[in-house]
Amino acid sequence: MSRIGSAKVHWVGMSTAAREVHWLGEGHRLLHAGPPLAWSEMCGAMRNAAVGAIVYERWAATLEEARAMAERGEVEFASAHAHGMLGPMAGIVSPAMPVFIVENLSFANRVFVTINEGLGQTLRFGANGGSVIERLRWMERQLAPLLEEAIMLGGSVDLSAIIERALQRGDECHNRNKSATSLLFRRIAPWLVRSSFSKERIVEVLDFIDQNDHFFLNLSMAASKATMDSVRDVPGSTIVSCMAANGHSFAIQVAGLGSHWFDEPAPLAQGRYFTGYGAEDANPVMGDSYLSEAAGLGGVAMAASPAISNFIGGTVQDAIQATEEMYRITDAEHPRFRIPFLNYRGTPFGIDLRKVVETRIAPVINTGIAHRNPGVGQIGAGLFRPPLDCFKNAYVAVTT
Amino acid sequence: MSRIGSAKVHWVGMSTAAREVHWLGEGHRLLHAGPPLAWSEMCGAMRNAAVGAIVYERWAATLEEARAMAERGEVEFASAHAHGMLGPMAGIVSPAMPVFIVENLSFANRVFVTINEGLGQTLRFGANGGSVIERLRWMERQLAPLLEEAIMLGGSVDLSAIIERALQRGDECHNRNKSATSLLFRRIAPWLVRSSFSKERIVEVLDFIDQNDHFFLNLSMAASKATMDSVRDVPGSTIVSCMAANGHSFAIQVAGLGSHWFDEPAPLAQGRYFTGYGAEDANPVMGDSYLSEAAGLGGVAMAASPAISNFIGGTVQDAIQATEEMYRITDAEHPRFRIPFLNYRGTPFGIDLRKVVETRIAPVINTGIAHRNPGVGQIGAGLFRPPLDCFKNAYVAVTT
Repeated sequence: MSRIGSAKVHWVGMSTAAREVHWLGEGHRLLHAGPPLAWSEMCGAMRNAAVGAIVYERWAATLEEARAMAERGEVEFASAHAHGMLGPMAGIVSPAMPVFIVENLSFANRVFVTINEGLGQTLRFGANGGSVIERLRWMERQLAPLLEEAIMLGGSVDLSAIIERALQRGDECHNRNKSATSLLFRRIAPWLVRSSFSKERIVEVLDFIDQNDHFFLNLSMAASKATMDSVRDVPGSTIVSCMAANGHSFAIQVAGLGSHWFDEPAPLAQGRYFTGYGAEDANPVMGDSYLSEAAGLGGVAMAASPAISNFIGGTVQDAIQATEEMYRITDAEHPRFRIPFLNYRGTPFGIDLRKVVETRIAPVINTGIAHRNPGVGQIGAGLFRPPLDCFKNAYVAVTT
Repeated sequence: MSRIGSAKVHWVGMSTAAREVHWLGEGHRLLHAGPPLAWSEMCGAMRNAAVGAIVYERWAATLEEARAMAERGEVEFASAHAHGMLGPMAGIVSPAMPVFIVENLSFANRVFVTINEGLGQTLRFGANGGSVIERLRWMERQLAPLLEEAIMLGGSVDLSAIIERALQRGDECHNRNKSATSLLFRRIAPWLVRSSFSKERIVEVLDFIDQNDHFFLNLSMAASKATMDSVRDVPGSTIVSCMAANGHSFAIQVAGLGSHWFDEPAPLAQGRYFTGYGAEDANPVMGDSYLSEAAGLGGVAMAASPAISNFIGGTVQDAIQATEEMYRITDAEHPRFRIPFLNYRGTPFGIDLRKVVETRIAPVINTGIAHRNPGVGQIGAGLFRPPLDCFKNAYVAVTT
């Protein structure tokens, strides 16, 4: 608990996926969100994202060719987690993609995460049209170099401090990152202006960040991973170190058992749908952002973010109740992440298999909801409870 | 109530005090916060601020000469309110000072407010040393021209929308303006970069705004005034249209009686003091920011800002209780300014003399606390309840 609570996570630089993950450096290889799965098991949105990434990498000229390559088994896939990487929703990471380098200074461990693409049609939700690929190229060529020079000029950005403050400002830093994005924007805008790039390019970058209230999401996810990676391989520990899904299965890892996945079929989220969509359109849950809940953010910190409760159709009381329930399955209260409306009580963290099994209470997780058909994108947001069997099986494995 | 609730207040441009207030254009004239008072009645902090402004205007070469001028009656003073202007704390406005032009689009009325100087030693708290005067000159020559070009490029900034969102992010927009300042920063940073000024000067301005979480305060005050000015001269109305103090007296204006002031001796605030200071050091309350509470912000909206309650030594329950009590003396709930933790109930606004007199409940007002000796500056923050006699006397006047 003290390791998790004392994490000091900073964004320290920019790189590319291939530079940081050598496995990506040869052949046609892609990373995906959640536990490992084969092309044949992938949901439509994840397949579409992979197909888009193949075109983005110019391994194929058209989406059709790209899909045929994947169908023929000419593209290898691996779980991003196996390579210190992560991504939201489909979480497809290809070699040329720029990534944030995020470091937990307390334990000198690093993780990598892609840059959030913004709202609307995006690769992470399975869109792969021309504008999606073009945006990815703009991010690689125009956005990343400015972010790189800015962070070199500024040194680093204390993500833990931003999260701490954002929790005082209505974010739970998973489904809501509005204040965190504002704080990041304020921090880096002067560095961007000091960079050697033209004012026109700086304005483009400022506008891109300003137009996406989820810009901070990927950094928040990376902060959670950098934090939770510090409790990998603690012998006998029943603390949940990772939660993630891939649209096919939901899985957890446990501090006592390194990188072994305990997976079950991915559930559907319950929530509020955008106009014209309903539960029958929803894809099973997907993405690496469920790590947030393991680190004391997101659903477990919902009482900090009544706006999210409201957005998904709940009341403030629902939000407070959700957080209060989470104290029953966690071992600690966060020393820095505090909830104003619980009189600054720390957020619940350290999900303990023993308590989950004993109480039969699964963690509350916030999520965006993707359409089950590829290319449609986000159709809502909601909550889900992961399958209890993940926790039961992990408990049995770690205690026997 | 509908006029107040439907206000659409925008920052639309920059100007100078002399350009907008013709009375300031001749002789040696200064405006001050709160109801009118003579030099002889001013507290030390306000006198010091006036002396600093005289040096800033170069009407005198030294602080000593400036003080002597004021003592000899060679400087005329007027309440800023009589001229559509306002300012925080001492609220001294001199002709050369740059001002924001703030317009209530719903009623086409305009108000003017100075730019917040930042934290630490400032004129508004009665500091007038070399660095304070230098900063005022920097604001006039370096800051204001950039803000002017930015707002010309951007058109306008919707202050009502920023306030609405900041209330979802832990601000009550009087004592806490952190999220509002972030939102403003995000909005104008791209415009600043697009301006014709050098990157060095743009960075200076971004840094100045970033380093002052109260940058938005003056705009919030102006938004409240632009809103409440729409209910001046409503015959027979018992709604409080203005509250302000000058360190000597606290006074209110009432919708039914135009610009007549009902004043009583200014009380002391109760609150938390910075290390080394206590209640015996406090100056009686001062400033035009108490207009916030008339417009549904600040103390009456405290339930939106547990951090402020915490900062001044209270609990979240104190904050909620304060707001809930305010519904007993107000006539409406704000259609746009909503409090997440009261399930998005609108903030209480439209303080009604009848209800104040009947319940003997005075409004809860948030404030910074100035040291009673000039030059020390802010020594804490707290709450106060204005004298009930202001409301009683106004009630008698408006109903007879």
